[in-house]
Amino acid sequence: MTQPTSLSALNERIAAVNDVLNAASVLTWDSRTMMPEGGAETRGHQIATLTRVARDLLLAPETEKALEAAEQAVEGLSEDAAERRIVLQTRHAVEHHRRVPASLIQERAALRTVAQSAWIEGRSKSDFSIFAPHLAKTVELSRAYADCIGWTEHPYDAMVSIYEPGETAASLKALFAKLRTGILPILDAARSRPAPRSDFLFRDFPEEGQRAFGLTLAEKLGYDFGRGRLDTTVHPFEVSFTRNDVRITTRYSRNYLPASMFGTAHEVGHGLYEQGVDPAYTRTTLATDLVGLYGVGGTSFGAHESQSRLWENHIVRSPTFWRLHFPELQRHFPDQLGDVSAEGFYRAVTRVEPGFIRVEADELTYDLHIMLRVDIECALMDGSVPVSDLPGAWNAAIKRDLGLDVPNDSKGVLQDVHWSTGYIGSFPTYTIGNVMGAQVMETLRTQNPSLDGAIEAGEYSVLAQELRTRIWQHGRRFMRDELLERETGRRLDPAPYLAYLQGKYAQ
Amino acid sequence: MTQPTSLSALNERIAAVNDVLNAASVLTWDSRTMMPEGGAETRGHQIATLTRVARDLLLAPETEKALEAAEQAVEGLSEDAAERRIVLQTRHAVEHHRRVPASLIQERAALRTVAQSAWIEGRSKSDFSIFAPHLAKTVELSRAYADCIGWTEHPYDAMVSIYEPGETAASLKALFAKLRTGILPILDAARSRPAPRSDFLFRDFPEEGQRAFGLTLAEKLGYDFGRGRLDTTVHPFEVSFTRNDVRITTRYSRNYLPASMFGTAHEVGHGLYEQGVDPAYTRTTLATDLVGLYGVGGTSFGAHESQSRLWENHIVRSPTFWRLHFPELQRHFPDQLGDVSAEGFYRAVTRVEPGFIRVEADELTYDLHIMLRVDIECALMDGSVPVSDLPGAWNAAIKRDLGLDVPNDSKGVLQDVHWSTGYIGSFPTYTIGNVMGAQVMETLRTQNPSLDGAIEAGEYSVLAQELRTRIWQHGRRFMRDELLERETGRRLDPAPYLAYLQGKYAQ
Repeated sequence: MTQPTSLSALNERIAAVNDVLNAASVLTWDSRTMMPEGGAETRGHQIATLTRVARDLLLAPETEKALEAAEQAVEGLSEDAAERRIVLQTRHAVEHHRRVPASLIQERAALRTVAQSAWIEGRSKSDFSIFAPHLAKTVELSRAYADCIGWTEHPYDAMVSIYEPGETAASLKALFAKLRTGILPILDAARSRPAPRSDFLFRDFPEEGQRAFGLTLAEKLGYDFGRGRLDTTVHPFEVSFTRNDVRITTRYSRNYLPASMFGTAHEVGHGLYEQGVDPAYTRTTLATDLVGLYGVGGTSFGAHESQSRLWENHIVRSPTFWRLHFPELQRHFPDQLGDVSAEGFYRAVTRVEPGFIRVEADELTYDLHIMLRVDIECALMDGSVPVSDLPGAWNAAIKRDLGLDVPNDSKGVLQDVHWSTGYIGSFPTYTIGNVMGAQVMETLRTQNPSLDGAIEAGEYSVLAQELRTRIWQHGRRFMRDELLERETGRRLDPAPYLAYLQGKYAQ
Repeated sequence: MTQPTSLSALNERIAAVNDVLNAASVLTWDSRTMMPEGGAETRGHQIATLTRVARDLLLAPETEKALEAAEQAVEGLSEDAAERRIVLQTRHAVEHHRRVPASLIQERAALRTVAQSAWIEGRSKSDFSIFAPHLAKTVELSRAYADCIGWTEHPYDAMVSIYEPGETAASLKALFAKLRTGILPILDAARSRPAPRSDFLFRDFPEEGQRAFGLTLAEKLGYDFGRGRLDTTVHPFEVSFTRNDVRITTRYSRNYLPASMFGTAHEVGHGLYEQGVDPAYTRTTLATDLVGLYGVGGTSFGAHESQSRLWENHIVRSPTFWRLHFPELQRHFPDQLGDVSAEGFYRAVTRVEPGFIRVEADELTYDLHIMLRVDIECALMDGSVPVSDLPGAWNAAIKRDLGLDVPNDSKGVLQDVHWSTGYIGSFPTYTIGNVMGAQVMETLRTQNPSLDGAIEAGEYSVLAQELRTRIWQHGRRFMRDELLERETGRRLDPAPYLAYLQGKYAQ
């Protein structure tokens, strides 16, 4: 990427914003992995201040001046030139933040603190009424926020635009209808078959062996530990502080082997995306979410999730992977897995078993959990379902889709942290990730005839190189659908995902 | 501390500055304990940006407005009221930073990067000429910096004022003359006695046992792990992100037991100071070094060092301590220490042995290492010794004071990191810490008749409570000499320190 002098002032301003946002991410990572409990309150102040500082830097007169100069400078450039995108995206973010008053941001931040406490208490007591008033307030402030940002068809559109620009309530409804029609018959077929043996997954697996295998796994998939590290947290996540420092976490469940293994593979997928962004984009708008105020290099939440799902589900949750690597897992756990075959292991970890909890769901039922949440988020935003009716609506959907009776709200409407953080609108991105991952994978398999052979030989660098060239290196330069059109010839399309599920679960 | 409404605007501004500076400290801690090597370059940008943001917040018109309102509001308050000190210190810092142009700050920051590389190379090759031009530039920029800040008698005065307000080249010269006169005879006497047995200190001490003993030691001394943690680094340090999160590090030398033990005790002393600052001062000027732009709660570098030296040397390096706790150390290392007595152990760890390296020096020779450096710093600042003459001046001083011939510059003039960071003026604070620690300890022993008994019984909380009340809780409210006058009845006085050294080393 060349840097015309006329862009250097803007790039310098944004580099500072990126620094501050990445600093906030370091503080968040530290608070979840290293911080002593006493530090929580002041750490909250520190992160809030950094976010406010980043926004102030973005809205400062100096940024506006640099932005106006840059807008003139890029006028002649082609529509998809990196420099032009820098300017367009910065302008978009500046206008976005100008529309949201600081008072509303403060109100949302203040709500988050009390809402999270209420959610934790409500969930532990399985009492929705403790959280309900805070959720009602969250909906109220989210509507105010949506009105600031602006929307035409549905207030939910404004919320989704933060995480997945381009998607709307209507586009998601259409996508989900197709997915539901495709998934339900595959699920029926899968459930009609006898469950495979899976008892061995629940044996005693000391953390040391799990960690050793996880580290090998991450390296095999191409994760660069010279620019990353793997730690342990209650809720696994990936976070980057530029492509040069991209960290992942996992959790070790001593009596359930798959948790850490597939969790690690998932976060490695996220990490590879961030580690693969073009170095020239470091500290620029093309590696910073200036709307969401987050130092991330991937282009949308859904695009990010596509990479984690691709590595987790298409690579690691495959018969090929375990045929190659199960012997190594057995070496770590000779007693626990001595009586298991690679094929038996694969069958066990891909068994279909509808349950109440989204984060424990199998591939076939996962999207049904998401659809339920998105339906509820839309209804909350347009007021068609009051907060008080949520548990009923939730439980009815679980009964309808999965045939299960939700025993209590902590296994139902109170299970996810998302709404307690004061945010609505990110749930669709999980399913978009599934769809996009399959679409990219299908294209790569078609266009690169040597890819399948490489994967079967355990040479994952061939896949990584394809993804780096087509997806990762572009950072946030292209929007998600633009990227898909460039690389797969079409916008988001559920067909490859349904074909993938069909192939995996309908035999 | 009450907060008049008229101070709340100022306190809010400073709280943000404190947040940003503490965020920078988290990033520094992380870079030394956790960060993958790939992250170094962008991490440097992030820390630099945060420091610049903190300075900009301090110099913003909003801060000036809030400060002027606060200045009016505190006019009637007593001279040592916390609110008045907040205003005075903030004004002092604002004026300080106004005098230093941003261009000079940038020049110093740019120099630091190249100077550190040159120092690392020069030290590894023991070739002063590699580092010399960068040191010359450091002196040049330090003079420019001193001229900005302002000085009357000696340019060194301006540099020292950053770390130890109140001290000057002249005051240090007077102090050091007294110390030298007192220390040299004690050193002569100590060197004339036969060296105690110390071979057992160099046996094989696995890290696990050292760490376990270190954790127990830290807890015994009162360090609160609910607001802290102990990690491993090449160079031990303490850093705080408010009193609620105060971290320490140590290093484990497998073949030299004292390194980690006394290093941990030293950093615990620093940590106790920070953990003991009045909670009401959190995120205020009274817990922020607004001149040095560092989120620290202790009132000066020397005062900070007094607490670390007090715990390390007066408590842990005492016969009483080892009479009480040597059996526990033996339990960790039964084979290595089975043939050693508590008294023999104490004698070994307090043996006097002049050497080339400051950080390995015993208590008696340590200050001589400091005096040499301060003499050189003064001479560099006033131009009486050119950089090219430094190795000669250094080696002559070591010969004169310790009777040793420096074999090469990496064991001489190139051994310390300090000058390579572009800073001059912090060395005196180590010796000031020794002096102040002894002065405080003498007063406490005189004024609290039950203190010695408590220490002899291993009840360190009595000492901690005294220090908390007299020193720690005040944070940065009082200047160092003011604090000493309040608590010991006099300003910094070398007599108690010399009496302590005499008692410990002249028998």
